Amino acid sequence: MHLECLHHAPHSNWAYLYEKETFHLRVRTSKQNVDRVYAITGDKYDWETYHHEHKMPKVANDRFFDYWQVAVKPEHRRFSYGFRFHSGKETAWMIETGIFTEEPEAPNGYYDRPFLHEIDLFEAPEWAKSAIFYQIMPDRFANGDPTNDPEEIMRWGTEPTRESFFGGDLQGIINRLDYLTDLGITAIYLTPIFEAPTYHKYDTTNYKKVDPHFGDLELLKKLVNEAHAKGIRIVLDAAFNHISANSQQFTDVIENGAHSRYVNWFHIHEFPVKVREGNPNYDSFGFFAQMPKLNTANPETREYLLDIAEYWLKEVGIDGWRLDVANEIDHAFWKDFRRRIKAINPEAYLIGEVWNDSLRWLQGDQFDSVMNYPLSDRLIDFLQTDDMDAATFAAHIGGLLMRYPQQANEVLFNLMASHDTPRVLTQLGGDKRKLKLAIAFLLTFTGTPCIYYGDEIGLEGEADPDCRKCMIWEEDKQDSDLYQSYKQLIQLRKKHPVLRTGQFGFLKADMHKRPIIYERYDEQGHFTIWMNASEELALLTHTLEGNWRDALTGEKAVEEEWQVWIHLNPFGYKILLKD
Amino acid sequence: MHLECLHHAPHSNWAYLYEKETFHLRVRTSKQNVDRVYAITGDKYDWETYHHEHKMPKVANDRFFDYWQVAVKPEHRRFSYGFRFHSGKETAWMIETGIFTEEPEAPNGYYDRPFLHEIDLFEAPEWAKSAIFYQIMPDRFANGDPTNDPEEIMRWGTEPTRESFFGGDLQGIINRLDYLTDLGITAIYLTPIFEAPTYHKYDTTNYKKVDPHFGDLELLKKLVNEAHAKGIRIVLDAAFNHISANSQQFTDVIENGAHSRYVNWFHIHEFPVKVREGNPNYDSFGFFAQMPKLNTANPETREYLLDIAEYWLKEVGIDGWRLDVANEIDHAFWKDFRRRIKAINPEAYLIGEVWNDSLRWLQGDQFDSVMNYPLSDRLIDFLQTDDMDAATFAAHIGGLLMRYPQQANEVLFNLMASHDTPRVLTQLGGDKRKLKLAIAFLLTFTGTPCIYYGDEIGLEGEADPDCRKCMIWEEDKQDSDLYQSYKQLIQLRKKHPVLRTGQFGFLKADMHKRPIIYERYDEQGHFTIWMNASEELALLTHTLEGNWRDALTGEKAVEEEWQVWIHLNPFGYKILLKD
Repeated sequence: MHLECLHHAPHSNWAYLYEKETFHLRVRTSKQNVDRVYAITGDKYDWETYHHEHKMPKVANDRFFDYWQVAVKPEHRRFSYGFRFHSGKETAWMIETGIFTEEPEAPNGYYDRPFLHEIDLFEAPEWAKSAIFYQIMPDRFANGDPTNDPEEIMRWGTEPTRESFFGGDLQGIINRLDYLTDLGITAIYLTPIFEAPTYHKYDTTNYKKVDPHFGDLELLKKLVNEAHAKGIRIVLDAAFNHISANSQQFTDVIENGAHSRYVNWFHIHEFPVKVREGNPNYDSFGFFAQMPKLNTANPETREYLLDIAEYWLKEVGIDGWRLDVANEIDHAFWKDFRRRIKAINPEAYLIGEVWNDSLRWLQGDQFDSVMNYPLSDRLIDFLQTDDMDAATFAAHIGGLLMRYPQQANEVLFNLMASHDTPRVLTQLGGDKRKLKLAIAFLLTFTGTPCIYYGDEIGLEGEADPDCRKCMIWEEDKQDSDLYQSYKQLIQLRKKHPVLRTGQFGFLKADMHKRPIIYERYDEQGHFTIWMNASEELALLTHTLEGNWRDALTGEKAVEEEWQVWIHLNPFGYKILLKD
Repeated sequence: MHLECLHHAPHSNWAYLYEKETFHLRVRTSKQNVDRVYAITGDKYDWETYHHEHKMPKVANDRFFDYWQVAVKPEHRRFSYGFRFHSGKETAWMIETGIFTEEPEAPNGYYDRPFLHEIDLFEAPEWAKSAIFYQIMPDRFANGDPTNDPEEIMRWGTEPTRESFFGGDLQGIINRLDYLTDLGITAIYLTPIFEAPTYHKYDTTNYKKVDPHFGDLELLKKLVNEAHAKGIRIVLDAAFNHISANSQQFTDVIENGAHSRYVNWFHIHEFPVKVREGNPNYDSFGFFAQMPKLNTANPETREYLLDIAEYWLKEVGIDGWRLDVANEIDHAFWKDFRRRIKAINPEAYLIGEVWNDSLRWLQGDQFDSVMNYPLSDRLIDFLQTDDMDAATFAAHIGGLLMRYPQQANEVLFNLMASHDTPRVLTQLGGDKRKLKLAIAFLLTFTGTPCIYYGDEIGLEGEADPDCRKCMIWEEDKQDSDLYQSYKQLIQLRKKHPVLRTGQFGFLKADMHKRPIIYERYDEQGHFTIWMNASEELALLTHTLEGNWRDALTGEKAVEEEWQVWIHLNPFGYKILLKD
């Protein structure tokens, strides 16, 4: 047995409270090296009376390892535990003090979970598990009120630059809510709408004012109310890492230097404040002088921002915050932020913009979710070329699923693209078949899907500014076939809770091949999803009990001797549901 | 190269802020499999201008792995990073997205530390790094005031039972402060002193009252003031996990059942409250009916306990809390606890009673320290018999050092024994040579040492109640030779900061052998510590530059051709200091 590959860490994504009294244990072994794994649990104060053995199913693998996971419910909300591994005739035990080839006497040296406290449970809003999100850049989505347009706007639909205004606004969104309802959307994430000099408004000048080019407070209330009436929630974007250099606060620092009352609101290295050879002498977002970084550790600044975050929940009833450049703000700030926001609305959904491993923010005391770029990166990598085989893709997905507790996975903000990436269709070489496959994956995978405005009607575009083109509203210029695919898959996801919270597992993902089969299952339902990520026709088969039907057409699947047979076109997929 | 053994985790004990702008990176490789490791760092917003390479020294090993660590100071308090490994002619890179045999283009997919925030820095009190602690059970240390003795007390020095009272008290401690000063003690940890029916007082009935058998509020103030005047700090013990079943609150629940106003202070499963076949129908510490578990998630209970914790800091000026059964109380409670206590005294030292891996509590938002039983377990295991070789011992110590950030290691509460274990001398078979070796290790190792009252004069005792015997004050019955060893080593540690905060590393720890050599070093000083954990005479040698002297005697070490030669008696040690 490859003992050096056995791994577990207490109090982490390897050992966490999943529900009030249900605890998840995970453990890792060398890939295809171990046959069976058991979790051994017991009460350290009376091991003799209270001890159990739990067979652990294998739930994932990545490049080097297999992962095993089991749910346990200890009698007294506390337990100690170890693991036993079987590989051929070999047996090994792993406890906190080491790895042994003879059974170590329990509970001395075993891992310990002293008590299961509900108050420490990481719980994300229930609604977020079922939501279908749609991301909108207001300037580019719909111009519902030409009277509030900026002085100089580009003609709708022309090529944007990094400075263009197009006149989109909140009234435009209100006008198009029925479009979103038809598509099946249940939540909107709006990029910033507060007063700012740019069209994108990530450089806020007044956090408590709706930008006049988008509307005003009353119009925002109207949007939220009308959206709520249609079952659509609204999440706004808070850019708290930095503020506009034109803001009253930073202007004051420029004018008054070290004597400014806002001097501690920023990270100023020397006075006077200036920009030399493109480099500001103060901390900023990246090296952008226009976006001075806020000192969120300064109590006054922190209070200023937290008050803003509270204000929009209380005043307008928004349903959550997407938190811009969240990773560059301190953890202490986000802990306060969560406490204050959840006190107003425990169901507020908090999504951090963190592109990397985000475990540190997903422990129940900061965010509910993060923007899951690692997922789209891997899915797009897989579909873009045929360099990656199915086994490697499955290994990537397995590794990602094991990064976080399951309740975090269930509400991760799964997006294929955003205003910060090229359009997904463009990344997939304009190949609609690949896009449909990607969307089928997104909408049958664990986590909260988000569609970037226009992706569903075939908008293309390279990186910023090209990915921020205007929405196309002329129906004859929209790709209605693509729209119908999105709509159909959204309906399917909404109809079947198992697609949101069921277990996920690969059934087939071979080396040197491209087709994959995976499943979603719980006590209520069982799906198998068949995908052919290749230019060849594929005939896939898998041993499956029961009767299976195409979940989209109702057509019965071909079965012979317990084998299900599926023909797939190049980049085709089928979603089967067990009767 | 054993690629599957390469390991790093961002935002953890593998990647943490050590000081305001200094960041530590750690990485793991298969043992003796990799020759050199480099950290590659850069600014993701301008990699070209700001990127660096850092050679990582090997700082520890355990059974399967080598560990490498380096400190970095990025120009803009933010950086992305990866690692490069060299093994013979092989080269490999590890970044967040995987392990590669060709250099992955930076910074895409690299690990990321978005910003170094001082507010998120885990800082323990500076004084705790230099403290020499002494643990006292007041009933057993010294009886300074016979007038406050319990009605029935045992004669001082007789064998204790689990119920015996001996009459020790706060006045006794005040009377013996000079003894502690002579020994070199700079901090006292007192087991509970609040009103409780038992002698040990872990079953509190009134948290705001000094137990009358120990003294009163004024006497406690006198103790704290006199101790402070002698440079000795006082840490009290808070048993907040459970309360006495005789407490007013629990008595009320027994009497009024579901109608008690304290019903939510506990975890009651059914009414009436009762104990059946030894099992209470409410949550308790272990299965002890006398110690009902408090519901620390109930805001009223939480406030009650936090107010108590604040009270003793404000009213008496104690220097910290040792937190009993801290691991069974929720994290939310401890986060509030830390915030409130540090607001009163940022230098208060918070030590949690956690026997297992405590990383979850040592991230800067809960405890400063935990009782480091894993260290004493391994050190005692090593010395108890000759089953463990030096290499295995060094592997255990290496593994422990890599568990936590370095600033946590520097204030871990390193104790050889406590009221909850057999006496260290007894665990070492009564062998004083072994005890001296253990103490020499304790006092030259990273972390805050604590001496359990009486260990320094040769007290012996098996587990509770035998390990809680009365202190011996007759000088002719004290082991003065042992006392002098303790005193000498304490003086040495106090004189040389390098013994507290210097780097630690093993120089020799061979398989199938028992002697060890390790070093402590920083810019100010360099120690090598030579230990012979065997029954044989040993002649140890090691290549060392410079001139070395016995740090205790001043004697010059024998050097020949850059080799230092040291003769050691069985279980002897020498501590060398470089001139």
